[in-house]
Amino acid sequence: MSTEKNTSSESISKIKSFRKNIPSAKELTEGILNGNKTALGRAITLVESTNITHLNRANEIIENCLTHTKNSIRVGITGVPGVGKSTFIETFGLHLTALGKKVAVLAVDPTSSISKGSILGDKTRMEELVKDPNAFIRPSPSGSSLGGVARKTRESIILCEAAGYDVILIETVGVGQSETAVHGMVDFFLLLKLAGAGDELQGIKRGIMEMADAIVINKADGDNLKRAKIAKTEFTRALHLYPPKENGWIPKVLTCSALENKGIQKIWELVDTYLEENKNRGGFQLKRREQNKYWLLQTVEDQLKQSFYQNKEVKVLLDRLLLEVMDSKISPFKAAEKLLALHQKELK
Amino acid sequence: MSTEKNTSSESISKIKSFRKNIPSAKELTEGILNGNKTALGRAITLVESTNITHLNRANEIIENCLTHTKNSIRVGITGVPGVGKSTFIETFGLHLTALGKKVAVLAVDPTSSISKGSILGDKTRMEELVKDPNAFIRPSPSGSSLGGVARKTRESIILCEAAGYDVILIETVGVGQSETAVHGMVDFFLLLKLAGAGDELQGIKRGIMEMADAIVINKADGDNLKRAKIAKTEFTRALHLYPPKENGWIPKVLTCSALENKGIQKIWELVDTYLEENKNRGGFQLKRREQNKYWLLQTVEDQLKQSFYQNKEVKVLLDRLLLEVMDSKISPFKAAEKLLALHQKELK
Repeated sequence: MSTEKNTSSESISKIKSFRKNIPSAKELTEGILNGNKTALGRAITLVESTNITHLNRANEIIENCLTHTKNSIRVGITGVPGVGKSTFIETFGLHLTALGKKVAVLAVDPTSSISKGSILGDKTRMEELVKDPNAFIRPSPSGSSLGGVARKTRESIILCEAAGYDVILIETVGVGQSETAVHGMVDFFLLLKLAGAGDELQGIKRGIMEMADAIVINKADGDNLKRAKIAKTEFTRALHLYPPKENGWIPKVLTCSALENKGIQKIWELVDTYLEENKNRGGFQLKRREQNKYWLLQTVEDQLKQSFYQNKEVKVLLDRLLLEVMDSKISPFKAAEKLLALHQKELK
Repeated sequence: MSTEKNTSSESISKIKSFRKNIPSAKELTEGILNGNKTALGRAITLVESTNITHLNRANEIIENCLTHTKNSIRVGITGVPGVGKSTFIETFGLHLTALGKKVAVLAVDPTSSISKGSILGDKTRMEELVKDPNAFIRPSPSGSSLGGVARKTRESIILCEAAGYDVILIETVGVGQSETAVHGMVDFFLLLKLAGAGDELQGIKRGIMEMADAIVINKADGDNLKRAKIAKTEFTRALHLYPPKENGWIPKVLTCSALENKGIQKIWELVDTYLEENKNRGGFQLKRREQNKYWLLQTVEDQLKQSFYQNKEVKVLLDRLLLEVMDSKISPFKAAEKLLALHQKELK
């Protein structure tokens, strides 16, 4: 018991000293703009905090940094667990730092708080990259809602860009709607796949194929090489079934072995080609502008819904009317009317 | 000029006498429950009206009819213009009335008011069915928003079912999100296609394939027969790429010639098999309950958004902040906060 007490008072003093040492928004902004990793990390901690005083400081830093973002590239990377995302990001990231680029790695993983599955959490999975002075790796923010996690990641991107990172890699696992969120914050979206037992397309989540700017078949090494080539053909054929993208880009399929560092260069060259084509045609800036618009409207609509669904009185009536509607005792439209009238009254 | 005057006063007296003769909600409900087509038609006119006094009466009729709906089947039919939807519905409808079923035909066409393209508007396209005493055909309601048109159609379904129609066919053109709306109000969703030049899958709208419970290749006659068979194979293969439906149904591909009345029976048999399997497994009622829930929540969320986007003060600020957000002068989240604060103030 005395140990507990000690620990507790120790913790308190630690927290107090930490609080004392939290630099101001201005100091953190300056640190970020000077490329200071510690300042960047602390600012992201503020962004991720649910403490309201932290939130205000975080907002100030973000607004300060917004006008300082440089010409960075945001690449989304998705794939089911086991596809080798960490190894891929390690190899890909090291390839980029060797080219003289500064690389930041972020993650969107709305499941991490539930499953404790640590996307990027286990930094030792990227042993080399984490030691690279030109790399910044940040584990997935915690949070139960995808909206919250996505928002935090999206704001962290702004900070990383202000800190001078040239390439921001955003990892996500193929769970829930997280790909859509990541797709909405990146310039290039990369789907990692494995060569399987021949029927590659079965079990691909709906909508993922449409989002991908490139499909990379990883672990194309050893015994897998032949199967990877077959998979490449099948995916190329399948991609052909989708209508072309608005910006005219036709998604490509590549193979690589992150473990043996093979095919990595080609992937970066592909991203580069994409960016060049897209910047020349104006699609790059257009997409970013559309993404900003999307996040504004999305946030507004999410909040409007939250204000409705989280109202206690509305909740009670909704539960009752849902049952009546499902049993066809009242029409859905009449029920909606009643609910909206109550919500209106509650707001006043 | 004097002619104009006459016409005008004639019209006025006509409208007046029509108004006088509008029966009460109770009378119309009784008429509907007795299977009276005129009463049904008049009630649907009330449903489609934007006049607020009509709306109240319409709501009363709908609530009255809700508990009287029988075991009808709702079938959605979609396909691009030229695929032969009208001929198909005529032949399919006559096949059903010959089986002793009462058939109602409704339409969701959010474009009709703009393009004047008359989905079901030209009733002469269904010459035989329109004369059939066991068929009721209603042209697409007018309206500029899909939400409005879909709502009207969905409420009209309730009335048709109360009037004893066994099969409700809901037609839509492959435009905008209308298929999603129709898919959300039917038990079975049928996609009409033509055999083309070989590359059948190109140009199919995203998401349509996933929604279809059956694909029917129409105009499989004469010179087209061989191509229709090839298309059937290709579609069957493509459907195989999608994950199975929640209810376990594997979508089927059939060919038919509505013009020569070939293959129509097989289509109805397929719908019948689907319904039997689905009712046994409980999927039928579950889907209907889920659809009711969907329409309730969808209506609530649409209205919440409308109240926001239609507020004049909010509109002005939104226009300004959208520009700032797109130019990265303010973060989307900060902008959303400002907008929601203003909206909140406006509501009070």
